[in-house]
Amino acid sequence: MKLEAITYQPIGMVHTPHKTPQGAPIQPTGARGAVGRAVLKPELAPGLKDLAGFSHVILLYHCHLAGQANLEVKPFLDAEPHGVFATRAPARPNALGLSVVRLKGVEDNVLLLEDVDLLDGTPLLDIKPYVPDFDQPPGPVKTGWLAGRAADAGTAKGDQRFE
Amino acid sequence: MKLEAITYQPIGMVHTPHKTPQGAPIQPTGARGAVGRAVLKPELAPGLKDLAGFSHVILLYHCHLAGQANLEVKPFLDAEPHGVFATRAPARPNALGLSVVRLKGVEDNVLLLEDVDLLDGTPLLDIKPYVPDFDQPPGPVKTGWLAGRAADAGTAKGDQRFE
Repeated sequence: MKLEAITYQPIGMVHTPHKTPQGAPIQPTGARGAVGRAVLKPELAPGLKDLAGFSHVILLYHCHLAGQANLEVKPFLDAEPHGVFATRAPARPNALGLSVVRLKGVEDNVLLLEDVDLLDGTPLLDIKPYVPDFDQPPGPVKTGWLAGRAADAGTAKGDQRFE
Repeated sequence: MKLEAITYQPIGMVHTPHKTPQGAPIQPTGARGAVGRAVLKPELAPGLKDLAGFSHVILLYHCHLAGQANLEVKPFLDAEPHGVFATRAPARPNALGLSVVRLKGVEDNVLLLEDVDLLDGTPLLDIKPYVPDFDQPPGPVKTGWLAGRAADAGTAKGDQRFE
């Protein structure tokens, strides 16, 4: 399979209270109230026009502290190994992270964020408005090995395993 | 702001019935029943272990047909221009696409998908299990200029504007 490499230029950086993976929230559910800022390159500020009308944004970012990917990982919420694509582990073939966070305001090239689980200094690749009509599937959802465990992300904390 | 470029190697390619942007669905809500396949590089197949237990996956991909980004765009669902980060337009500073699609099965290195709005031949960057506890924010959601319009994505079709 011939596929060309794809290069992105970060659009900015995210600043949060979570300085290290150890002790950091593993999902936004474990980061309620945590305040952060996304600072875009100043020249991209016009791209934020009208974003302030949305209460939540999807951040796509590079997990810059993630170590080498393994195809099977023991995630934070289970003692059993799973395929990396069946987990949200940051150390993955492409270390892309995704978080739905609360947007409290937009000031020039800066987003004021809440419920932020990102690590401080994370390079930001994209911002999308969160739209339930687009982003929530209709009908029932099955969550495989995470059924009955996902809620634990509200209290679970990260450690060094994916550095 | 000094930020290093980030290079990803696609993990595979997505095959769908949507051959061109013109006439393609603009969101999964407009692609109900559309069947597709994600074919991973064979060596990545172990990363799919246990994914079949999930009913939906988040696909992160490169919008390979997107043209040059503009910071203000007229999206498919409005005649007024908006900041590109307040839209889901594919032509954006980093042409990252995100779709929540239905997972019908996993066969070796192939995902069988439904409700697929991706264009045929899209390079795939990541697969994450969709988990409502992680991906749906608690409480009410405001959708800015898309309020009252997002449901139109069920019938709206793409055109050439972002090529």
